[in-house]
Amino acid sequence: MMRRLAALLLFLPLLAAADPLPSWNDGPAKLAVTQFVTEVTDATSSTFVPPAERVAVFDNDGTLWVEQPMYTQLAFVLDRLKAMAPQNPQWREQQPFKAALEGDQAALSEAGMEGLMELLMTTHAGMTSEAFNQLASDWIEQAKHPRFDQHYTSLVYQPMLELLDYLRSNGFKTFIVSGGGIAFMRPWTEQVYGIPPEQVIGSEIELTYEVQDGKPVLVRQPEIAFIDDKAGKPVGIARHIGRRPILAFGNSDGDYQMLEWTTARASPRLGLILHHDDAEREYAYDRDSHVGRLARGLDDAAKQGWIVVSMKRDWTQVFPNQTHD
Amino acid sequence: MMRRLAALLLFLPLLAAADPLPSWNDGPAKLAVTQFVTEVTDATSSTFVPPAERVAVFDNDGTLWVEQPMYTQLAFVLDRLKAMAPQNPQWREQQPFKAALEGDQAALSEAGMEGLMELLMTTHAGMTSEAFNQLASDWIEQAKHPRFDQHYTSLVYQPMLELLDYLRSNGFKTFIVSGGGIAFMRPWTEQVYGIPPEQVIGSEIELTYEVQDGKPVLVRQPEIAFIDDKAGKPVGIARHIGRRPILAFGNSDGDYQMLEWTTARASPRLGLILHHDDAEREYAYDRDSHVGRLARGLDDAAKQGWIVVSMKRDWTQVFPNQTHD
Repeated sequence: MMRRLAALLLFLPLLAAADPLPSWNDGPAKLAVTQFVTEVTDATSSTFVPPAERVAVFDNDGTLWVEQPMYTQLAFVLDRLKAMAPQNPQWREQQPFKAALEGDQAALSEAGMEGLMELLMTTHAGMTSEAFNQLASDWIEQAKHPRFDQHYTSLVYQPMLELLDYLRSNGFKTFIVSGGGIAFMRPWTEQVYGIPPEQVIGSEIELTYEVQDGKPVLVRQPEIAFIDDKAGKPVGIARHIGRRPILAFGNSDGDYQMLEWTTARASPRLGLILHHDDAEREYAYDRDSHVGRLARGLDDAAKQGWIVVSMKRDWTQVFPNQTHD
Repeated sequence: MMRRLAALLLFLPLLAAADPLPSWNDGPAKLAVTQFVTEVTDATSSTFVPPAERVAVFDNDGTLWVEQPMYTQLAFVLDRLKAMAPQNPQWREQQPFKAALEGDQAALSEAGMEGLMELLMTTHAGMTSEAFNQLASDWIEQAKHPRFDQHYTSLVYQPMLELLDYLRSNGFKTFIVSGGGIAFMRPWTEQVYGIPPEQVIGSEIELTYEVQDGKPVLVRQPEIAFIDDKAGKPVGIARHIGRRPILAFGNSDGDYQMLEWTTARASPRLGLILHHDDAEREYAYDRDSHVGRLARGLDDAAKQGWIVVSMKRDWTQVFPNQTHD
């Protein structure tokens, strides 16, 4: 017993020296992260931050997992509509359903935000929370990405999984702050990212509490309660966390205010933006993309002191099981 | 070193046997709690609950701290109005402000919910979140209870502090689910209850994100965003926690749905109601009280399998530093 303990003690320095971010190339981004973590965890330094205040927030779509060619939640919406279509034959002649079922991008664009909202509410409301959880869980277990032919939960970014682990092993509490639906993410974030449901913040529809045949249920209503995007992200953070993060990581202009709010606090603070510049291993898009548009963030990053992480240069690997496609 | 370790090991069984709830009298309530915790933490039992799912929710007013003769937050409102009165001389002739400043209960009652809402918004909105935090923190540090002449944060219930600690030391995550304002509680719950801001759920007003003179702020708007009371409590739990608690503790009919939602799940689950029946050490009130009314909960407790905790019989001590008044 004592021998094994002694052997273990001998290996501790080695374990400590192991690279916690093996999928990150040595470079300014990795250095900024490891220096920041060293600063806030050094109890003898003026930059020390008590563990309770080590709050790190992460966007989801395009920051933790793939968001091209369309938001994963939109793929879920389209699949749900197809599954519901036989019970709704009128959709064959009714917009925006017809466009969605036929994959008619032009007609879908014409239906605009109002049309999209109708599709969202049709597939996300009018059922109990329990029933929706089941639908989302079942879908995420079987659906596959059109290009990579893998489950969406396999198309999370390996370097980000390492970063989440690294932060948590240094006393950070990691949160998702996503424009996506909170109920769509929660069924799988704990297993995939190690982030429990209570640390997932997202957009919400109204819920009502009802007792149906003696059984209490929460019923999802076709009405937006909260949009956790852009200026909504600092609001979502205030509501759910109640303190200002010291680290924020995003990838689009939808994350601008979250980064701004986080890094406007006194030091130490760290803001990071993932730049999708890797068409070969993932996708390359920024200013002109309709999904995950990044323009203002790129323009202001230097001024704001935010680190732009290049997928192409800073990551040795993108997905956990990537084989070139 | 080894001697000290050996000595420590000798004491472990003793430490384990120490009563974790010394302010609870032996009786059915204490037994229900300790049996429940034993059940859910026994990895060999069919009643085992993994730590991630050990969610316990607590009402605040009247469950964790005193709520008589008025909600503490209302005392804060009245004190804020007095502090703001010199800058608002018109209030001397304007209801409901006149009634509030003069302590005119009849006129206040006449102003009703609308009047109360006006007082609440006047004192809680129109400032940044940071400024409000400071006001709430400053007030809670100096204000004293009219009967006990102690700070409100000293008028928390010692048996409940022990219960929170006991649950956490058994892997539970403890949450507050209060009808009170989330921003009024968060500045002090971590220090007083060991419950961090991200585990505090309460009523919310609208927040807007703004950049003022280059500095981002959250501005509190005079508009209700969410009422975390009655049927709102299961909704607040769904929004903030995203899973169903296994233990709920309340004291009024405002907690009925939270208890119902919690205990409608499959076993194991535990619902508890604190009954204020101790006029000598605290207060005695239930069916006819305008604050913390408890009628339906008492009527249905047996049928629902909820444990009614008698302050008088089940608690050896009420406040941490109680001297009879």
